[in-house]
Amino acid sequence: MTTPPVGIIMGSQSDWATMREAATLLEELNIPFESRIVSAHRTPDRLWDYGKTAVDRGLQVIIAGAGGAAHLPGMMASKTRVPVIGVPVQTKALSGVDSLYSILQMPRGFPVATMAIGSAGAANAALMAAGILALQDPDLAKRLDDWRDALSASIPEVPHD
Amino acid sequence: MTTPPVGIIMGSQSDWATMREAATLLEELNIPFESRIVSAHRTPDRLWDYGKTAVDRGLQVIIAGAGGAAHLPGMMASKTRVPVIGVPVQTKALSGVDSLYSILQMPRGFPVATMAIGSAGAANAALMAAGILALQDPDLAKRLDDWRDALSASIPEVPHD
Amino acid sequence: MTTPPVGIIMGSQSDWATMREAATLLEELNIPFESRIVSAHRTPDRLWDYGKTAVDRGLQVIIAGAGGAAHLPGMMASKTRVPVIGVPVQTKALSGVDSLYSILQMPRGFPVATMAIGSAGAANAALMAAGILALQDPDLAKRLDDWRDALSASIPEVPHD
Amino acid sequence: MTTPPVGIIMGSQSDWATMREAATLLEELNIPFESRIVSAHRTPDRLWDYGKTAVDRGLQVIIAGAGGAAHLPGMMASKTRVPVIGVPVQTKALSGVDSLYSILQMPRGFPVATMAIGSAGAANAALMAAGILALQDPDLAKRLDDWRDALSASIPEVPHD
Amino acid sequence: MTTPPVGIIMGSQSDWATMREAATLLEELNIPFESRIVSAHRTPDRLWDYGKTAVDRGLQVIIAGAGGAAHLPGMMASKTRVPVIGVPVQTKALSGVDSLYSILQMPRGFPVATMAIGSAGAANAALMAAGILALQDPDLAKRLDDWRDALSASIPEVPHD
Amino acid sequence: MTTPPVGIIMGSQSDWATMREAATLLEELNIPFESRIVSAHRTPDRLWDYGKTAVDRGLQVIIAGAGGAAHLPGMMASKTRVPVIGVPVQTKALSGVDSLYSILQMPRGFPVATMAIGSAGAANAALMAAGILALQDPDLAKRLDDWRDALSASIPEVPHD
Amino acid sequence: MTTPPVGIIMGSQSDWATMREAATLLEELNIPFESRIVSAHRTPDRLWDYGKTAVDRGLQVIIAGAGGAAHLPGMMASKTRVPVIGVPVQTKALSGVDSLYSILQMPRGFPVATMAIGSAGAANAALMAAGILALQDPDLAKRLDDWRDALSASIPEVPHD
Amino acid sequence: MTTPPVGIIMGSQSDWATMREAATLLEELNIPFESRIVSAHRTPDRLWDYGKTAVDRGLQVIIAGAGGAAHLPGMMASKTRVPVIGVPVQTKALSGVDSLYSILQMPRGFPVATMAIGSAGAANAALMAAGILALQDPDLAKRLDDWRDALSASIPEVPHD
Repeated sequence: MTTPPVGIIMGSQSDWATMREAATLLEELNIPFESRIVSAHRTPDRLWDYGKTAVDRGLQVIIAGAGGAAHLPGMMASKTRVPVIGVPVQTKALSGVDSLYSILQMPRGFPVATMAIGSAGAANAALMAAGILALQDPDLAKRLDDWRDALSASIPEVPHD
Repeated sequence: MTTPPVGIIMGSQSDWATMREAATLLEELNIPFESRIVSAHRTPDRLWDYGKTAVDRGLQVIIAGAGGAAHLPGMMASKTRVPVIGVPVQTKALSGVDSLYSILQMPRGFPVATMAIGSAGAANAALMAAGILALQDPDLAKRLDDWRDALSASIPEVPHD
Repeated sequence: MTTPPVGIIMGSQSDWATMREAATLLEELNIPFESRIVSAHRTPDRLWDYGKTAVDRGLQVIIAGAGGAAHLPGMMASKTRVPVIGVPVQTKALSGVDSLYSILQMPRGFPVATMAIGSAGAANAALMAAGILALQDPDLAKRLDDWRDALSASIPEVPHD
Repeated sequence: MTTPPVGIIMGSQSDWATMREAATLLEELNIPFESRIVSAHRTPDRLWDYGKTAVDRGLQVIIAGAGGAAHLPGMMASKTRVPVIGVPVQTKALSGVDSLYSILQMPRGFPVATMAIGSAGAANAALMAAGILALQDPDLAKRLDDWRDALSASIPEVPHD
Repeated sequence: MTTPPVGIIMGSQSDWATMREAATLLEELNIPFESRIVSAHRTPDRLWDYGKTAVDRGLQVIIAGAGGAAHLPGMMASKTRVPVIGVPVQTKALSGVDSLYSILQMPRGFPVATMAIGSAGAANAALMAAGILALQDPDLAKRLDDWRDALSASIPEVPHD
Repeated sequence: MTTPPVGIIMGSQSDWATMREAATLLEELNIPFESRIVSAHRTPDRLWDYGKTAVDRGLQVIIAGAGGAAHLPGMMASKTRVPVIGVPVQTKALSGVDSLYSILQMPRGFPVATMAIGSAGAANAALMAAGILALQDPDLAKRLDDWRDALSASIPEVPHD
Repeated sequence: MTTPPVGIIMGSQSDWATMREAATLLEELNIPFESRIVSAHRTPDRLWDYGKTAVDRGLQVIIAGAGGAAHLPGMMASKTRVPVIGVPVQTKALSGVDSLYSILQMPRGFPVATMAIGSAGAANAALMAAGILALQDPDLAKRLDDWRDALSASIPEVPHD
Repeated sequence: MTTPPVGIIMGSQSDWATMREAATLLEELNIPFESRIVSAHRTPDRLWDYGKTAVDRGLQVIIAGAGGAAHLPGMMASKTRVPVIGVPVQTKALSGVDSLYSILQMPRGFPVATMAIGSAGAANAALMAAGILALQDPDLAKRLDDWRDALSASIPEVPHD
């Protein structure tokens, strides 16, 4: 079984409600991916293994979604040089600002490409992955350009009630 | 060499300016401790080892200080059942609110005993450690009571210019 | 009637919706506890008595939940050296940030082990209490290890729709 | 020795830098006052006594300044029906928003008349006390009116470099 | 028609949902009051008149509730020395933090006694008014003490499901 | 003496440090203006008069700067239909977020054209005034276009150390 | 077809729910307008064209509503000297504070007249446009005065349940 | 002259103080780059041209730093599918939270890979660029691994005073 270029990981099953937006977008762009639950706190060894083997398995981009004290994206970025895109999941009390700060404010050395809070961020994580992969894949570049053109073309000129 | 009951760990040398307050207080209370730099992102394997061996080494309390995307306290709490006390270090742009949210908002299963942002929090981490250890150590309980009494006795009745 | 090792106190009946998570967790771990309403403002003398007698009654950990100008955890920490774990209850206008700051930002001398805002924080308060008590109780340590292992084992590898 | 109508209390000597603004204003308005350090956490019994005796001693207004987890104003309001005016002292990490929320967000039953953060708030606490006392004291009402008129008259029409 | 000692004013009809808590409490304490809509922006001249005549009419306390750019309490405080108690009404986008800052952060010279955001704040405004009036009215002082005692007595010891 | 088209008003002399940026820009664009201190709280009658006479005096735009509970811009907008541009002055404890919310969150009926916090906002207030006046003044439109072109032309292509 | 004096533009169809308040108000005041969807990110060339032709087409005021990373108002202000009024649309995770900061904090040179978050801000954008146009249109000035008078007259004196 | 793989762009000369951290890191990793001032508001046509030609010129990654209403990264992402990494520059009044929200909260369709606020974010932008380029460049992958190893190796075990 070959490794797909993109891995979508998330801290818990409940994050899937947000992260499936990334999956949907990757499917629209015909980019293979795997999706896994990798909890930084509940399954730290799974995180370790995923990170340690990422390069050898051939992963090109990791999309990591998490909420609250969202340590998954940053810890993954510490374990592998494969680019990590972080999606802050919205939370109940703090609206995802806790997720955002935990993902964004990484120290010098370990970047996480942080996206907007919630579903729009998950969709954009897929598009960012597409943009990265398109650097080596002219066909995907064409599909991405087409997707963007179609989005622009879909906007009506005048709002309707 | 015996393991002391308390381990003070921090994400970087720069955190020592804050965390030495914890060390000072532990010294005042005559509680042995060790202090280590354990960076969640730069030395994740050190974090792993420290957490995995904490129970067997006989550590009773771990005080962990970190700033920004402060993953050290929470990741340590995921690796060991030894109580972890977290100290949010003040940061430049976000004043330590980033550190606070990253430490505080742990998911169900992995508590971090979060203290106030900055030096007062570091001092209080030591006092919380003392309160925990005092449950098994009547002499320390006495020293802690005395320390608290002395603090109260030091407050003048009337403010002076 | 013997005093249980853990006291759960809260500022009002309405906090019980949050704090029963702590009770549930303590029951799961087979840790005896008592639960009391102790309002810092409406029943300050009850707070005083609870704090003054905590050591002599044999309480080992106090879990205190409160919302808004949440003075209960901090005032309890001022009255006893028994470790106090604070749970910020979510509030209507300020989402529990008011509760959080009132509990967290204690001055040097009187630590409160602050947990996450809301129900996850209440559950974690129980787990923190368990971790503290486990230092003296190998059986509880075993139960806590098992609970943590079971939590980790319950995480599926792949998210489902 | 007669009790003055106004008591200025504060959590620590360091709050005096802010609270002396209240003292200065009371002096300008010729209102007798006493100033005391009453720490909610370090000297809770002093707080208790001050509150319990306030009515009998004849205090008419209590001005209470505190910073961080600022429990002094609210706890005082729980111990006496004498009106309590709260002044949030500015803090290092959270700029006094922690002080503000701890003082302001009191539950139904125990109001604290909260002033602006910092020195302006301390000065205004004195003016609020004056407004309250002026209800029973026509001479003070006249002095307060004059003070307000003088303030208004001092404003130039055109700004200067 | 005699002027009651307390005037409840508010920026709009929609604020009444919050401010009727103040009215209810004043009724419980048997304190006469009037309630008026006085919009700082829509009826500025009404504000002017209310403020200018407050002393002569015999108003002793003004309770002013407003939301958003809540200028009513502060502008009233600028027009009369009668003590003004401000209630920040909760708002849709900013949860009443806009109301709070607009009411609280008054410059030196014009205090507004700010209460908690929303209904609890409105109730407390009435209790603060009662505390102020009680300084001159032993019967009201007794009723207020009884109200407070009854509140304390109503708190059960143990929470129920 | 003819009334200039633009009035710059501010709550206190200390606001001039910020508001003189507006004056400088108006001078650069050769737009006559007057500058006045009009304190909403300390000189409310001055505010009333300024607003009431604005239309008749021929004012075309009012630029109003204020800090803290910044009521000046909004109250002016309630007194005149002349467009009011608000500048939130930066404050010590809350960095001007208090000023911003007090100016911005006006209720339906009374708009204030709010600018960025601090000096950049004051400069932009002048440019907004220029844009409004240019609708009736082709020469000013030309000067404004030239000013904008010069600004664009001043940007180097490559940053220098 | 003549160009109306006011153009309402918005980033997406979903913003219309907010921006139709501006349309309604303009209709009430009998001010002609056009409404267009102009997405800064999805249709940047449409933005460019709208801005480049605004002066020549005779637009007098542009009302621009957007949410999240709301770049439309500021980019429009960079492309034309026609006054731009910005309306921050409320958002899910950050309540429109993201929209607000993206619109408000423009650098020196390119002002956006920012309104309150949400529907009240949209209505006020129309009123601000009316105030600007009224400078050249005595009939509109009269209609605006009447609208304001009617608003004031509609406020009852006493709140009803 | 060949186009380098990385373009560093920024909104103004003053951003260079932050963005030179990105340049320094790219030099350490021996990655060619160009640096340009491209102001979204002052030089929008420059932004347009840079974005339109990015793919054809062969740019692989664009690092864009900006402060305040930071529209540069998002507008660039709208003009090209080349991955855009955004760096929020710290600001005076709002500490860079304005920059952050303006860069981060992009709508579905146009991702910006947002980094931490300030210098650490600029350095990490370079490392993220390196991680992306390393997917196609084994030598760079080796250099990046070495850089990361050296960082980890540089952390002492014990803090020093």
